[in-house]
Amino acid sequence: MARFLKKRLKNKGEIPGTPVFVGEQKLEKCRIRIIDYDPKNLEETELPSIGPATKYLDTDTVSWINIDGLHDMDVINEVGEMFRLHPLTLEDITNTDQRPKMVEYDEYIYIVLKMLFYDDKNEEIVAEQLSMIIGPNYILTFQERIGDIFDPVRQRIRKQKGRVRTLGSDYLAYILLDTIVDNYFYLIESLGEKIEDLEVELIEENSAEKLNSLNFYKRELSYIRKSVFPVKDTITHLLRLDSELIGDDVRHFLKDLEDLTTQVNDALEVYRELLTDLLNIYHTNIGSKLNEIIKVLTIFSVIFIPLTFFAGIYGTNFEYLPELHFRYSYFIFWGALLVIALGMLFYFKRKKWI
Amino acid sequence: MARFLKKRLKNKGEIPGTPVFVGEQKLEKCRIRIIDYDPKNLEETELPSIGPATKYLDTDTVSWINIDGLHDMDVINEVGEMFRLHPLTLEDITNTDQRPKMVEYDEYIYIVLKMLFYDDKNEEIVAEQLSMIIGPNYILTFQERIGDIFDPVRQRIRKQKGRVRTLGSDYLAYILLDTIVDNYFYLIESLGEKIEDLEVELIEENSAEKLNSLNFYKRELSYIRKSVFPVKDTITHLLRLDSELIGDDVRHFLKDLEDLTTQVNDALEVYRELLTDLLNIYHTNIGSKLNEIIKVLTIFSVIFIPLTFFAGIYGTNFEYLPELHFRYSYFIFWGALLVIALGMLFYFKRKKWI
Amino acid sequence: MARFLKKRLKNKGEIPGTPVFVGEQKLEKCRIRIIDYDPKNLEETELPSIGPATKYLDTDTVSWINIDGLHDMDVINEVGEMFRLHPLTLEDITNTDQRPKMVEYDEYIYIVLKMLFYDDKNEEIVAEQLSMIIGPNYILTFQERIGDIFDPVRQRIRKQKGRVRTLGSDYLAYILLDTIVDNYFYLIESLGEKIEDLEVELIEENSAEKLNSLNFYKRELSYIRKSVFPVKDTITHLLRLDSELIGDDVRHFLKDLEDLTTQVNDALEVYRELLTDLLNIYHTNIGSKLNEIIKVLTIFSVIFIPLTFFAGIYGTNFEYLPELHFRYSYFIFWGALLVIALGMLFYFKRKKWI
Amino acid sequence: MARFLKKRLKNKGEIPGTPVFVGEQKLEKCRIRIIDYDPKNLEETELPSIGPATKYLDTDTVSWINIDGLHDMDVINEVGEMFRLHPLTLEDITNTDQRPKMVEYDEYIYIVLKMLFYDDKNEEIVAEQLSMIIGPNYILTFQERIGDIFDPVRQRIRKQKGRVRTLGSDYLAYILLDTIVDNYFYLIESLGEKIEDLEVELIEENSAEKLNSLNFYKRELSYIRKSVFPVKDTITHLLRLDSELIGDDVRHFLKDLEDLTTQVNDALEVYRELLTDLLNIYHTNIGSKLNEIIKVLTIFSVIFIPLTFFAGIYGTNFEYLPELHFRYSYFIFWGALLVIALGMLFYFKRKKWI
Amino acid sequence: MARFLKKRLKNKGEIPGTPVFVGEQKLEKCRIRIIDYDPKNLEETELPSIGPATKYLDTDTVSWINIDGLHDMDVINEVGEMFRLHPLTLEDITNTDQRPKMVEYDEYIYIVLKMLFYDDKNEEIVAEQLSMIIGPNYILTFQERIGDIFDPVRQRIRKQKGRVRTLGSDYLAYILLDTIVDNYFYLIESLGEKIEDLEVELIEENSAEKLNSLNFYKRELSYIRKSVFPVKDTITHLLRLDSELIGDDVRHFLKDLEDLTTQVNDALEVYRELLTDLLNIYHTNIGSKLNEIIKVLTIFSVIFIPLTFFAGIYGTNFEYLPELHFRYSYFIFWGALLVIALGMLFYFKRKKWI
Repeated sequence: MARFLKKRLKNKGEIPGTPVFVGEQKLEKCRIRIIDYDPKNLEETELPSIGPATKYLDTDTVSWINIDGLHDMDVINEVGEMFRLHPLTLEDITNTDQRPKMVEYDEYIYIVLKMLFYDDKNEEIVAEQLSMIIGPNYILTFQERIGDIFDPVRQRIRKQKGRVRTLGSDYLAYILLDTIVDNYFYLIESLGEKIEDLEVELIEENSAEKLNSLNFYKRELSYIRKSVFPVKDTITHLLRLDSELIGDDVRHFLKDLEDLTTQVNDALEVYRELLTDLLNIYHTNIGSKLNEIIKVLTIFSVIFIPLTFFAGIYGTNFEYLPELHFRYSYFIFWGALLVIALGMLFYFKRKKWI
Repeated sequence: MARFLKKRLKNKGEIPGTPVFVGEQKLEKCRIRIIDYDPKNLEETELPSIGPATKYLDTDTVSWINIDGLHDMDVINEVGEMFRLHPLTLEDITNTDQRPKMVEYDEYIYIVLKMLFYDDKNEEIVAEQLSMIIGPNYILTFQERIGDIFDPVRQRIRKQKGRVRTLGSDYLAYILLDTIVDNYFYLIESLGEKIEDLEVELIEENSAEKLNSLNFYKRELSYIRKSVFPVKDTITHLLRLDSELIGDDVRHFLKDLEDLTTQVNDALEVYRELLTDLLNIYHTNIGSKLNEIIKVLTIFSVIFIPLTFFAGIYGTNFEYLPELHFRYSYFIFWGALLVIALGMLFYFKRKKWI
Repeated sequence: MARFLKKRLKNKGEIPGTPVFVGEQKLEKCRIRIIDYDPKNLEETELPSIGPATKYLDTDTVSWINIDGLHDMDVINEVGEMFRLHPLTLEDITNTDQRPKMVEYDEYIYIVLKMLFYDDKNEEIVAEQLSMIIGPNYILTFQERIGDIFDPVRQRIRKQKGRVRTLGSDYLAYILLDTIVDNYFYLIESLGEKIEDLEVELIEENSAEKLNSLNFYKRELSYIRKSVFPVKDTITHLLRLDSELIGDDVRHFLKDLEDLTTQVNDALEVYRELLTDLLNIYHTNIGSKLNEIIKVLTIFSVIFIPLTFFAGIYGTNFEYLPELHFRYSYFIFWGALLVIALGMLFYFKRKKWI
Repeated sequence: MARFLKKRLKNKGEIPGTPVFVGEQKLEKCRIRIIDYDPKNLEETELPSIGPATKYLDTDTVSWINIDGLHDMDVINEVGEMFRLHPLTLEDITNTDQRPKMVEYDEYIYIVLKMLFYDDKNEEIVAEQLSMIIGPNYILTFQERIGDIFDPVRQRIRKQKGRVRTLGSDYLAYILLDTIVDNYFYLIESLGEKIEDLEVELIEENSAEKLNSLNFYKRELSYIRKSVFPVKDTITHLLRLDSELIGDDVRHFLKDLEDLTTQVNDALEVYRELLTDLLNIYHTNIGSKLNEIIKVLTIFSVIFIPLTFFAGIYGTNFEYLPELHFRYSYFIFWGALLVIALGMLFYFKRKKWI
Repeated sequence: MARFLKKRLKNKGEIPGTPVFVGEQKLEKCRIRIIDYDPKNLEETELPSIGPATKYLDTDTVSWINIDGLHDMDVINEVGEMFRLHPLTLEDITNTDQRPKMVEYDEYIYIVLKMLFYDDKNEEIVAEQLSMIIGPNYILTFQERIGDIFDPVRQRIRKQKGRVRTLGSDYLAYILLDTIVDNYFYLIESLGEKIEDLEVELIEENSAEKLNSLNFYKRELSYIRKSVFPVKDTITHLLRLDSELIGDDVRHFLKDLEDLTTQVNDALEVYRELLTDLLNIYHTNIGSKLNEIIKVLTIFSVIFIPLTFFAGIYGTNFEYLPELHFRYSYFIFWGALLVIALGMLFYFKRKKWI
């Protein structure tokens, strides 16, 4: 299956703006969790359907509604109606092969990003889509399956740590985005460590296995890059937005986040270049090794081929071959062979081959 | 024949703005089909000439006139007069080697794109030109031959599915464009799948055939890229147009389409890089294989060349060659050869050649 | 002689703005031809000097004055005075190594381009400079020698074909520019066809001759690119000009011309990439061939070297060499050699070398 | 450990805006040094805590407070409160893996850069973070450990050299930035000298050791680039800032600094390209050497292989082998061998192999 | 010594804006020459110090003051005071490793460029710095040593040739800049000629010497590029300057100069690409040659190795070896060898190796 461009086949020919779940179903049932808070109160609950959530929206509190699982179209459509989401938003949420982007609608801001995980089973990095709706006093997040990436954020809201309880939904959105970008950092850093280790190993050993690692890292970096690179523009776009939904106090944080994404992209670039350098080292090693092998072959051949020839001469059966009959011929013969061999060795020495 | 730049020879030296059919004639006769609809009514018909179409234009309904076949200059000129098309538009429609672009005229918007198909016979991707005229209450589409790519759109109009019947000609234009871009997705995804498969195969086998596939995919990607890359700018241009022909409600959809084209271009870029990586793997494999072959040669030569030399020594016919006459010479000789051979093997072992 | 940067030596140290003919003299005598027309009348004449041309300028007709040959400084200076051309314009006209560009002066627009021809004698592409002055009711064109590239335009003016007789000097300028760009198309297409053919040939045969062709095409593409690439900017610049000399009705045509130049540049880029790919194929072929040659060497050597060694053993003259005296030794010996040879063949078979 | 992207693990999951020291502790205790001056007076002191510094801030004098060591969170927080620093500023100061950048806050400008040193122990370049706060009449600098890079600046302030004592805090900031950029110059120049030396050495000798140097320089350049490249944008940003904190008289100096950073980036680029060229030379050398080795092998083999064959022929024991019994056979045989050998030598001579 | 980034060590740690001569002293004594002219009068003089120059400044005439030699700080400082030059200007003038740039000050425009010469002794291109101050009625030029590059300009001023005597100091500045850029042209053209010659030579011969030339040209191009590339921006910047010091009549000339610098940069780019192509040809040649050598080795080995084996067989001393005793064995044996050899030759023929 093409990994870099997932099949959109299922909804090919569909009317655009029709939400159809495109992706693998990763969860049995949609799970809807709500955290509703203001500086003083906090309410946490899990709902069977989105209906009862209305009561949290009429208040001034910040409501974070998290929906895990995107395959239940009924739930998604219900949410869409309740929050008056544009059909395209619904389509983007359910079609899990979106490029990271930000779209401003009249009543809300829609952000779609990728969360990256290392999949131990297939030994490769996988991306899951996170959709986020930023409304005036609520945040909607849609994940493909139940994950624990936002657990620290939940902890912090519960424990009233940091500014989070005193600021609005825009700050909550920022924290969630920051958590995701931090996760990119962690992932690239792990990969980077392995790549830098590979460099040391490559100098010592040149096995095909190392080459496979090298190509594997290259591919994983490409894969990460595809998900991570557009995030910077997304954040920049969000930062420059002239919208009441993003408060001035949050802009400084978003600027910081933008710098962070620049740093992530820089690191991706550095590791890409490093891999190219490693490939060069690998190639050079192969070339050097070939030279060494051929040198051994040449030295042995060049020394012994003439010697064998001379032995052949005195193995001929000519009737009149005077040298054969001298008393010390055999020893003179050996002497001559030695002289030739030493001469060759001296020649190679001078050429710095040995 | 040059595939990447079709002959414009036929109209070389022609006055610009003269519509001359440049391309292969792909259809016997031009076919004119009209779908005329409003939320309530729908009329579908096929006309022998463009004349009778006037009656659909005076009403408020949306009329989609599709013309298959571009070689009948009379039809094209008749259409041009009826819709007051600029001579350059007519020339662009009939000259089927246009770069995707968008041009705004006073009364209409002209868009030209490429539809891509996989041609089973020649085993390569072929591009056909689609021209589209967006007018206030009509859409004109010109195709080189009868195709089925828009059939799902027709179905949807007939069945009143989605928004299409309630919105204007601009939305219809969007749906048609979206259908084409979706088709790019499908095509690139098919190619991408094969490229990713090739990667796995290349690690195992390094035949010249694989190299040919690799170069073939590279060329096809170039060909797709030539048709697809300018589409993004075309859509962006359309989106930024300050024209009454494009309603505000359709702009959101166009923005979504623009993001889609970005994604298409990203994917093309990723697969290009992947192919370059594959070429590198291929080269490295050739180099490694050479090393392996030469290693076998060297090991055999280096072991047997001295042995043969020693055999040659005792094959000489010197009269006084003392060793020949000792009782166990032959067995000592064999012993010496074995020692030499084992010494060599040990040497190669230490060098990690075997 | 440096082909990519012609000697400016002749006028090095000259005051800028002094018209000095820099180039080879390609024509005996300057030739001045005038076509003067309005929708109704047409006058065509050839003048010995520029003086009598004044009478055509006072009327409302469009006058196209074409001057072939740039070495007669008197003629050039006379023209300069008559049309009040800036000294820099005169210098640019006569110095035939200009980069394509457009300069706006108070009374006229100056455009300089390259016309490209394939020079059969030297078997390379050569560029000739075309300078064009767009005035309110006249066009001046300066060519290095008499060419036939504009003959179709002359024919069309004579035959009242197209819009040309009814529109002004700006439209005539457009037609001339379009003719030149069309010629680029033709040239690149011819080259492209040969490059695409080369691809097929390279897969079959890998001669040094093919490599020379490849490098030749590369150089010619560079040469074309140098002349053609800046044309797009020139046209864009002309299109964006806020000048009364360019009418609104002609802008649509210039926009179309701009798209055409984009297409030309795209094609140049595609062919450049294709040549790089071909070079890669060439290199890979060399590598594969080396592998094949070495494989043959290795197989033969590895099989026969041990056999020869064994033959050598039984060619020794040891007095006590028991095997020599058994009755079937010779046949057993052959049997052993066969076993060894078959073993080797089996080994290579398993390694997929044969 | 990943060198190009330091672990942010420690504060992963932390609320953004929480200052947590991320880095190695490089100093036992924070050291706070103050230089307070105006054109007439100068006071220099070292404080145990930041508290007593208040008295310098109420005056019109310029106060430069330098804090070495970032691990004592109490000190950092105290400073933060006293100067009303934004939580993000505090986080950026203590997290020592920032990308160089400039952020404008209401009351101050925050700049973060890297100081680069050559670490003799690990034989590689290391970066230390310098944070700078530019306030109306004070400068705060934060370093990871006690360094001597700013000693010349201190000397100059003490000795009233240059303009520094008569201009404000913005000029002091400029001098500090200039000192850092000058240091980049020095570092790159040292590296550049070694790279240019390597070029000369590579032509003579092609050892694996040289290749390692080459890769080492490449990596160090990448490392420098990561720290230095964004500095230009930082300075440009600072220069374009519409802030009262930067006086008009200082802008000329900042412009000069901006040009300097452009020059630094150019030099980095030139050396990068040079290294790529060197790698090419290295590869070419390996290839040439292989050719030479194989040539020696081929010449020897091709000459002696036929000779040995002929010796073999006359070593056969055929009963009826007429040549063996002629009187001068042996000498004719030698003559024939010589003719063959000389013929081969002549052949190689003509091929210019010897 | 690092050639691409000259040591700034001498003034490292200096206060910015302190003029310190950084460079080699290339002249014994500073030389101050003045040319003062208006359309009617001309005065030329050489002064021992700058003091007496005041009298030329109060008049309306254009004064061109040229100072050769930058090591005498007293002279430089005196000039600085007299013309009220900014300290940074003085520093830039004396520090001879500036990147080409333009800076506007209140009373003058400062331009710094590189003049390029071919140094016959060291056989490389060297750059000397030219600083120019454009004032309302004067031009100051600072050169590192006495050069003759501006002699033609002096001649022209003396002989009242061209516009120079009737226009102001801005036109003089333009002429001087044009002279320098023309010199770039000349230099690049000389280099380009050699590079194009090298191409022809490389096809015939592949010596290491050619490779060294190739790398030498590459380095020289890099060196030129470093000095020449930023000139375009400098001129563009000057052209766009909203300053009274640059008259409208001179802007056309500066536009022309800007086009010239574009052309210079294009040529540099073309030659860089050409060198890369040449390197590719070189590599391919090495590869082809290796193939050829190995082919010779293989053909000889593969033919003679089996023959030698068969000779070895009949050299064995088996007691019962029936073939040895047949009458025509020896001739049959030769026949068999010939058949084998011819078979091999036929095989190679079919493989197109011979």
